[in-house]
Amino acid sequence: MTKTKFVASSLIRAMVEPRLPDWVEAHWYVTKEEAMELAPLAEIGWFDMYDKKDMAAIITAATNLKWLNSIYAGVDGMPLAELKKRGTKVTNGAGINAITIAEYVVMGMLNIAKGYREVMHAQDRHEWLVDSPGKVELYGSKALLLGYGAIGKLIEERLKAFNVDVTIVRRTPGPSSLAPDAWQARLGEFDWVILAVPATPETEEMIGADELAEMKQSAVLVNIARGSVVDQDALVQALQDQQIGGAFLDVTTPEPLPADHPLWSLDNCHISMHLSGRAQDKMFVRSAERFLENLKRYHKGEKLEPLVNLDLGY
Amino acid sequence: MTKTKFVASSLIRAMVEPRLPDWVEAHWYVTKEEAMELAPLAEIGWFDMYDKKDMAAIITAATNLKWLNSIYAGVDGMPLAELKKRGTKVTNGAGINAITIAEYVVMGMLNIAKGYREVMHAQDRHEWLVDSPGKVELYGSKALLLGYGAIGKLIEERLKAFNVDVTIVRRTPGPSSLAPDAWQARLGEFDWVILAVPATPETEEMIGADELAEMKQSAVLVNIARGSVVDQDALVQALQDQQIGGAFLDVTTPEPLPADHPLWSLDNCHISMHLSGRAQDKMFVRSAERFLENLKRYHKGEKLEPLVNLDLGY
Repeated sequence: MTKTKFVASSLIRAMVEPRLPDWVEAHWYVTKEEAMELAPLAEIGWFDMYDKKDMAAIITAATNLKWLNSIYAGVDGMPLAELKKRGTKVTNGAGINAITIAEYVVMGMLNIAKGYREVMHAQDRHEWLVDSPGKVELYGSKALLLGYGAIGKLIEERLKAFNVDVTIVRRTPGPSSLAPDAWQARLGEFDWVILAVPATPETEEMIGADELAEMKQSAVLVNIARGSVVDQDALVQALQDQQIGGAFLDVTTPEPLPADHPLWSLDNCHISMHLSGRAQDKMFVRSAERFLENLKRYHKGEKLEPLVNLDLGY
Repeated sequence: MTKTKFVASSLIRAMVEPRLPDWVEAHWYVTKEEAMELAPLAEIGWFDMYDKKDMAAIITAATNLKWLNSIYAGVDGMPLAELKKRGTKVTNGAGINAITIAEYVVMGMLNIAKGYREVMHAQDRHEWLVDSPGKVELYGSKALLLGYGAIGKLIEERLKAFNVDVTIVRRTPGPSSLAPDAWQARLGEFDWVILAVPATPETEEMIGADELAEMKQSAVLVNIARGSVVDQDALVQALQDQQIGGAFLDVTTPEPLPADHPLWSLDNCHISMHLSGRAQDKMFVRSAERFLENLKRYHKGEKLEPLVNLDLGY
C-alpha cells in the first residue's frame, strides 16, 4: 500500500508523530530550505511559518497538495486563488485561539478603563499614586462588536458578565444587532468598538478617517483582527489629536511594527504585538488534537472541520 | 424648630448641599483643624479623611454624634468601641465601590495570566515581542474566593463568565463552597486565592507562611481586602522564593508603601496602591445618593442602610 505523504514543521512533531495512523508517511522540516524541498511530495501539508511570504512560497511549491492545515485562524497570507484552482482543502485554527483572544480583549479594555499602564509605571518608580489614572467602569458601557465568529461570541459572553451592552453586526437582524450597512451611522453611540472580523477585501480599512470621526471622543478602538482592517495612518492622526479616547491594537501594519513608528509612543495606544492568541499553553495541543481528528475524517472521505471558504477567505 | 446639625467635608458639598432637606443645618470643613472645631456640634457626621488617624481623632471629638456616614467600605480606621458605647449608628460605602473593585480583580488576574506587564514594558522600548510572556488562561482555572459580600459576589459573577471554577467560603454549606474551617486544607487545589474579606480581628493575617506554603507553586494571591489580612513578611519571602506564582496587591501594610519596600521590585508582584475602588467616576454620586436616601430614613426614624455591625466591624 502506498502511504499518504504528509509534510509538516518539526515544531508540531512531538505532539503529532506518536499518534499518526500507519497510512501516513510523515516528513518533518526544520528550515525553509528543507520545507521547499519536501513541499512537492506533500498530499497533506502543515506549513505554518512566522514569515508569511516564506509560507506562501512553500504552499506554491506544494503542487500535489490536497489538504493544507494551519494552526492559525487567519489565512490571509495564503495563496487562496491558487489553492482554489488546485482544489486543495484548507483547514485552519479558527476557534483554537478564541478563548485566550477573548480574555485578552477584556484585559485590554480594563487596562485602558483603569489607566493601569500608568499604575504599572508608578510601581516601576516605587511611587504610591493617590488617585486612579483611569476612572471608567465597563459596567453600563456600550460596545459595538464587529465580527461574530468564535472569538466574537466569546468576547460577547464575557462582556455581558460585566454588564456591557454589546451590539453585534450581522446580516440576519435580531435584538442588540445592526445590519452590515447600519453600523457606520451609529458609531457615535459606543464606548468601545471591537474589531474581530476576518481580513478579507470586504473588511479592508473598514475603519478609516470617516469612521474614526464618527466615534465618541472617549471611545476606544480594540483591534484583534488584522492591521489591514484599519486605516492606520488615519488612526495615528485620530489618536494624536485625541479625536478618540484610545486604541488597543493586537495587530498592526506591518508586523513587526518598525521601532520608529509613531504608534509605539502614544499614551493612548496599547500595542500587544499579535500575542493575544499566543497567550495560552494549549495552542499546540488543541491544534494537534483537531488535526488528528481531521486525519480520520480525511481517510474516510468525510468533510474536514473547519473548512476555510477560499472565496470568502475565512 | 431646631435644625439637625450635620458636619461634613467640603469634598462632598457640591453633590449633597443642593439636595439637603430644610431640617438639616450643614457645616462644611476644609482642613482637619476646622473639622476638629466643628465635630462636637455634629449629630450627623461625614468625616472621611485619607489619614485614618486624623479621621479617628475627629470622630472621637464628635461627642454628640448619632449617625456617622462614610464613603468607604472599610471601617477599620474608626474607633468602633467608642462609637458603640455612644450608641452612634454607622453607615458605610459597602457596595459603592464593588463594581469597580470586581473589575479591577479580573484585570489583575488577566494581566498576570498573560504577563501583560512585560508586554507594556516591551512597548516602552518599542520592541515587538514574538511570544507571549504569559500563557495562562483564566478558562478552566480554579479560584478560591474568601469573602462573599457585595464585592465577592460581583467577582464571582464575572469569573464565571470566563469559565473559572469559583469556590467560596461561607458558614452555610452549599455547592462550590467550603466551610470556614475547611479552606486551609484545600489551598493546594487553587490557581487563584482572592481575598475580599473585611478587616477584622478574625481575618488578621489569615494568609501567613503556612497558608502560602500550602498554595500551588503557580498560584496567584489577589488581595483587595486590607494589607492586614496577609502576613506581608511571609508573602515577600514566598514571592522571592517563587514559592507561589505571584501576587496582585491592591492593599499593603503600611499604606502608602515606603519606596524602599521589597514588594515594589518583585517581578511577580503587582501593587495597585489601593486604587481599585477609586477607578470609577461615580463614587461620589453613588455615595451622595445613598446618604440622601438615608437622611429621609433617619428623619422618619427608619433603619439606615447599610448599617455597620460595630462588633463584627463590617
